[in-house]
Amino acid sequence: MAVTADIVVVGGGVIGTAIAWQAAAAGRDVVLVDPGTGESASLVAAGMLAPVSESLFGETALLALNLLAVRRFPQFADELEEATGTQVGLRREGTLAVAYDPGDYAALARLTEFRRSLGLGAQSLDARACRSLEPFLAPDVRGGFLFAGDYSVDNRRYASALSRAAALTGVRIVPGRVTAVLTADGAAPEVRLAGAGVPDSLSCAAVVVCAGWWSGGIEGLPAGVSQAVRPVKGQLLRLRLPAAMPPVLHYTIRATVRGTDVYLVPRADGELVVGATSEERGDDRTVTAGAVHDLLRDAMSVLPVTGELTLAETCAGLRPGTLDNGPIVGVAGDGLVIATGHYRNGILLSAATADAVVALLTGHAPAPEWAAFSPERFAAPHRPAAVRP
Amino acid sequence: MAVTADIVVVGGGVIGTAIAWQAAAAGRDVVLVDPGTGESASLVAAGMLAPVSESLFGETALLALNLLAVRRFPQFADELEEATGTQVGLRREGTLAVAYDPGDYAALARLTEFRRSLGLGAQSLDARACRSLEPFLAPDVRGGFLFAGDYSVDNRRYASALSRAAALTGVRIVPGRVTAVLTADGAAPEVRLAGAGVPDSLSCAAVVVCAGWWSGGIEGLPAGVSQAVRPVKGQLLRLRLPAAMPPVLHYTIRATVRGTDVYLVPRADGELVVGATSEERGDDRTVTAGAVHDLLRDAMSVLPVTGELTLAETCAGLRPGTLDNGPIVGVAGDGLVIATGHYRNGILLSAATADAVVALLTGHAPAPEWAAFSPERFAAPHRPAAVRP
Repeated sequence: MAVTADIVVVGGGVIGTAIAWQAAAAGRDVVLVDPGTGESASLVAAGMLAPVSESLFGETALLALNLLAVRRFPQFADELEEATGTQVGLRREGTLAVAYDPGDYAALARLTEFRRSLGLGAQSLDARACRSLEPFLAPDVRGGFLFAGDYSVDNRRYASALSRAAALTGVRIVPGRVTAVLTADGAAPEVRLAGAGVPDSLSCAAVVVCAGWWSGGIEGLPAGVSQAVRPVKGQLLRLRLPAAMPPVLHYTIRATVRGTDVYLVPRADGELVVGATSEERGDDRTVTAGAVHDLLRDAMSVLPVTGELTLAETCAGLRPGTLDNGPIVGVAGDGLVIATGHYRNGILLSAATADAVVALLTGHAPAPEWAAFSPERFAAPHRPAAVRP
Repeated sequence: MAVTADIVVVGGGVIGTAIAWQAAAAGRDVVLVDPGTGESASLVAAGMLAPVSESLFGETALLALNLLAVRRFPQFADELEEATGTQVGLRREGTLAVAYDPGDYAALARLTEFRRSLGLGAQSLDARACRSLEPFLAPDVRGGFLFAGDYSVDNRRYASALSRAAALTGVRIVPGRVTAVLTADGAAPEVRLAGAGVPDSLSCAAVVVCAGWWSGGIEGLPAGVSQAVRPVKGQLLRLRLPAAMPPVLHYTIRATVRGTDVYLVPRADGELVVGATSEERGDDRTVTAGAVHDLLRDAMSVLPVTGELTLAETCAGLRPGTLDNGPIVGVAGDGLVIATGHYRNGILLSAATADAVVALLTGHAPAPEWAAFSPERFAAPHRPAAVRP
């Protein structure tokens, strides 16, 4: 059994689906391969589009990329809503970052100074001003900063709309798990699959690998790229309003509570997404009692009313982390494009990544902000020095 | 559509199912009516058979009944295992009651003195002795008492075995919800049902109402009995061992942690049941963030390793509470038997309740410990004094 297509996209998270949709919209014949296990990190995310409040010391190239992505996102979301007739829940209220104790406030103030030095806007708010924006905040909250440049989107509605847009644009879905991508100079790539009732292989002009942390397990990728990707476990909670309780948040809240970070992202229906842990545990998606406890403790510390909400869901996902926390997007061989390693920013970067990959597939140059994130930076495998040639 | 039987049992929790099985084993033709919604409080319980560590000041008649029940339980469980060929997970290790801080210890010591004054056995243990029995206990634990007379059972295996035993003994199951039980002097009772594809009514020689807190909503019961029953919400958690982690508990642990009570009940496969809240919220089975947080906080305070366990399930059930915390078991009209209001002790009391009800149905006297728990104590409806005759 063999299937042919112009382009094979490997992975049905938001990165792969956005690329498949946009490549099909550009006139290409596209096959999307996805195991259909529902294990995509895209479904466990909170949907923060937060280049400003996520920026950290020393990650200026990533900040520039994230700013490109957040500027692009609203128009992409508009196109998606128009193509599918569904709402994806984009919110533009911004992020209110708050601190719980004096040490938390000092750390948040230092980070905000750094962000301002990069030209990012942040409005200082004392405790009273924070509570006038969000009346349910705990009296203990010391103060904070409003980052107006952050948005959020309902990640599950967004992922579902992307799937629908891809299908409406003619993308063919093939279930199954990709085991290898075989490329050779001057030859068409071949994609090998495993799974019952699934084609053995797909041949195509180009293959785009967007399999998240699992990308590292696909044979045929440059060894350095495979080694650069790893799963970073994130656990989060979904809280819902009991009947007749009005919404308890307007802004996305990021709180530093006794040195640990927690965020609370509101949805239009009042749901709150509370996250997230960051754990190095390999391929482990179990929900642990300790993580749920810590998330609830920190959420209830800054927003006590969360204790009254229904604990609707606990879940865990595996973000594709990389050695330098940046995504890996670019050409990695004849007919082979990589688009993975989006770590904590997969939803945010999805639209900009689709633009960049479609540019590569159609012979154009991606935006310059992508220059620092090509697979080439991991081209040499990480071997002990002694065995290097 | 009408169905006839010797005995109609209303309610498929452990009380109703145990009665149906035993009545059928005694040669009666039995129909069991159950809505099949899986909302039985029996499925949310932890399965503690704990007359000793559950006994409270002022509840001596209930203690005597619970002691009767725990003496009866092992033989009943043996018969059940033999009848069905399945194990119900009876454990006889006892309960280790521990205190977290000096105030907790003082309260536990006072309660233990009272229990000893009633002749119950309790072995005093200092902190070191507690940890030698349960090495994973937190260093903060001040000490405690071992109550050897407590058992536990896997409530879900037990409920499932009872259903199987009832079916094997010829009990017929009718789905649907009972709306009314019509009785009249000298006439056979009639049971009215609601639900699609369900008989409108059942006629029988006797009806036994075991519908838990919902019993109060069935028309035709004495008004005082209906008014005496209410739902008391209990939330609990099920924690499971990650792969390769050996069991972390041997005894049932009851802990007093900064004035609140938490219990941890181990199963043979290492699962721990952690409970439970006690909330007056009417017909509300939602799982709340605050309750899950508090249970995890208290469990992790006394047994820190619980933080590493998988949070496999959160659930809420509605115990049938009564005005005096005692069950309501006995004849309440011509051909009408009540067996409800078992509150926190439904699993424990199920075998003894089946004995008592089968005695009543076959013209024998129940054990004298039941004398204080007849429906007659609630015979007069609770009306304002002004309208009493």
